[in-house]
Amino acid sequence: MEYQLTEPARTLKVSAVRELLKLTQTDAVISFAGGLPAEDFFPAEALKQAFERVFTTGNKALQYGLTEGYTPLREQIGHRLARRDIHVAPDEILLTTGSQQAIDLVAKVYLEPGSVILTENPTYLVALQAFRYYSVKIVPVLSDEQGMDPEDLAAKIEQYHPKLVYVIPTFANPTGWIWETSRRMNLIEECDRHNVLIVEDDPYGEIKFAPDEHYPSLMSLAQQSGKDCVVYTSTFSKTVVPALRIGWICGTRALVTAMVRAKQGADLHSSSLDQQALFQLLDQYDLDAHIGTIAAEYQRRMRLMITLLEQQNLEGAHWTEPKGGMFLWLELAQDLDAEVVLKQSLQEGVAFVPGTEFYVGPPQKNTLRLNFSHTGREKMTAGVERLGRAIHECVSSVR
Amino acid sequence: MEYQLTEPARTLKVSAVRELLKLTQTDAVISFAGGLPAEDFFPAEALKQAFERVFTTGNKALQYGLTEGYTPLREQIGHRLARRDIHVAPDEILLTTGSQQAIDLVAKVYLEPGSVILTENPTYLVALQAFRYYSVKIVPVLSDEQGMDPEDLAAKIEQYHPKLVYVIPTFANPTGWIWETSRRMNLIEECDRHNVLIVEDDPYGEIKFAPDEHYPSLMSLAQQSGKDCVVYTSTFSKTVVPALRIGWICGTRALVTAMVRAKQGADLHSSSLDQQALFQLLDQYDLDAHIGTIAAEYQRRMRLMITLLEQQNLEGAHWTEPKGGMFLWLELAQDLDAEVVLKQSLQEGVAFVPGTEFYVGPPQKNTLRLNFSHTGREKMTAGVERLGRAIHECVSSVR
Repeated sequence: MEYQLTEPARTLKVSAVRELLKLTQTDAVISFAGGLPAEDFFPAEALKQAFERVFTTGNKALQYGLTEGYTPLREQIGHRLARRDIHVAPDEILLTTGSQQAIDLVAKVYLEPGSVILTENPTYLVALQAFRYYSVKIVPVLSDEQGMDPEDLAAKIEQYHPKLVYVIPTFANPTGWIWETSRRMNLIEECDRHNVLIVEDDPYGEIKFAPDEHYPSLMSLAQQSGKDCVVYTSTFSKTVVPALRIGWICGTRALVTAMVRAKQGADLHSSSLDQQALFQLLDQYDLDAHIGTIAAEYQRRMRLMITLLEQQNLEGAHWTEPKGGMFLWLELAQDLDAEVVLKQSLQEGVAFVPGTEFYVGPPQKNTLRLNFSHTGREKMTAGVERLGRAIHECVSSVR
Repeated sequence: MEYQLTEPARTLKVSAVRELLKLTQTDAVISFAGGLPAEDFFPAEALKQAFERVFTTGNKALQYGLTEGYTPLREQIGHRLARRDIHVAPDEILLTTGSQQAIDLVAKVYLEPGSVILTENPTYLVALQAFRYYSVKIVPVLSDEQGMDPEDLAAKIEQYHPKLVYVIPTFANPTGWIWETSRRMNLIEECDRHNVLIVEDDPYGEIKFAPDEHYPSLMSLAQQSGKDCVVYTSTFSKTVVPALRIGWICGTRALVTAMVRAKQGADLHSSSLDQQALFQLLDQYDLDAHIGTIAAEYQRRMRLMITLLEQQNLEGAHWTEPKGGMFLWLELAQDLDAEVVLKQSLQEGVAFVPGTEFYVGPPQKNTLRLNFSHTGREKMTAGVERLGRAIHECVSSVR
């Protein structure tokens, strides 16, 4: 028969990152491409014990669970959020299959064909992909290292009447940037005034290199000023392990209830066995100490990567040293195209994601995203050397 | 702010089954409501060992996985399907979060606002809920114990030009009915001729009470006649345990590739730890023997339920003895309303799902669904007595 796929299903492509990830499942390529946490630091033994404890609680642990997710885990998440000035009851939290599903569920209950959403530019490409299935119009707002430009934000709200703004205000993907508090406040006030929902995506916020530095979440700022225009999503994929795929979204009861209903149709519920194991882990294991350990290690890796890049003498290249997260955003000399560099790099045996992937509209082609969290010292040294070699070769062929 | 939820998000209700499931998480109510497998037969020890083996394979098991799902598990599923005359390669199989997500992903790549889909009537209510988020028009086809009525099917295809037909041809939810092979063939021919995609939902097909009885899947029949108009979905929720939420969907590469892309935006991938554990389980454990065991037990429970119902002398009530699956479909006397009976029943301490929930359009109000798989002898005896009492009380107040 002749299949009649929807337009998004016919026209949207598989993301290059995911395809690269497939390539790099062999060891031939050193990959700075995926947003992968460091495997050698996974709390595997603690997690194994957590699963063992779940199995001792009896067979009911293996039965169907609630769509909302395992209640004791939602309570724990509530306690962890309270320490960061986000105050939500368990029924204002929905457990999801990674924060990716949270993004999709917001879209599902909030966006219609033709709805306009605003995003930073560049921004997380798989969020764009999720949104595009709803046939929405995505409008980028001018963004810099301090966040969205207030004037452009106001102009775009005025012009497009968006339903939703999607942002990653702390250690953004792909840039690693952090919004200034004044920009955060401005976003909340603008959106509250114009009835625009803010989706705050915060997968990296806890992985900060200066432990005492405080970057207030949009959700906490909004709650402090009595505003209900923010939904907040995060995940344990970066702080525990990705394989469990446990994320969550929180917000007002009205929004969370709508998303629970949508999730029921979407998959009934996420793995309740994994949720119970994560509850057991959080109950017995010092996750904060663990996060401190990986943040310190990621900072070391990031500094090593920067040192190695400096040694490559890449004329015209620049970057800002990240204060947290997992990514370094690299701008090459103006006349270089990161997609061309990628082809050369793959021949050298190193992968990254060209910036092009992350832009809405015309991309800045000389940019690329490097993940520094996943690769240890030895491989990182070899990988950056290969990358340097590839860039130098591209420079020679361009000039 | 004033939220602007989409119309489905505003108007679709949480299913009564899920709400009942919440109620019945206490032990006060004996529940025949949920579609729950029997906990006392879960292969808990084998599953525990399967998880232990995954943890010995190293930390990479805890990293991000492929959107398609863990490849060795897809290979195993392929082998299992081949024995039932369904022939698909691993890249024609997508692992999902339960078969519920498979239904949602088909909808996501295939349905647009206003698309028409055909269903049996009554049919699985949470599939209806998934479809309704896509603002489609659901048209019921006259159905009886042998499947969809061929004349009505032809007429509805002619009149509505549907994009998709959703069916549960073997041990249907809620009725337990089984389509005749001739009806299966007729559906495939009609749909192939008119370019209509068939979604075959088969969560119960392996739980058959006569081990040697053969009910050919639509997918196998279509493949045998060289037709590509069927996608097939099933799950390990009923045959292993629900908590893992591991289902799958298979079909031609064109359709599966589109669904993989959609799943990437929807949640990147389902729990890869659980997928690896299920692979380990299938590798070392005799799942077929286990399925034989639970099928025999469910048959005993079903016969007990029928014996107990007969003892209640419910005037005007009738049912067909199921040949597999988990549900008994009960028709009460014409003048009884199962929703009224439910209210009375909850006071007596027993729950079920009124048939109303499963109908598209005007329901047959004197019907209800009883799950016989979850409840052991003692509770079932008490539960059916309570149900009988509730029905008799309703009879007295009606007449």
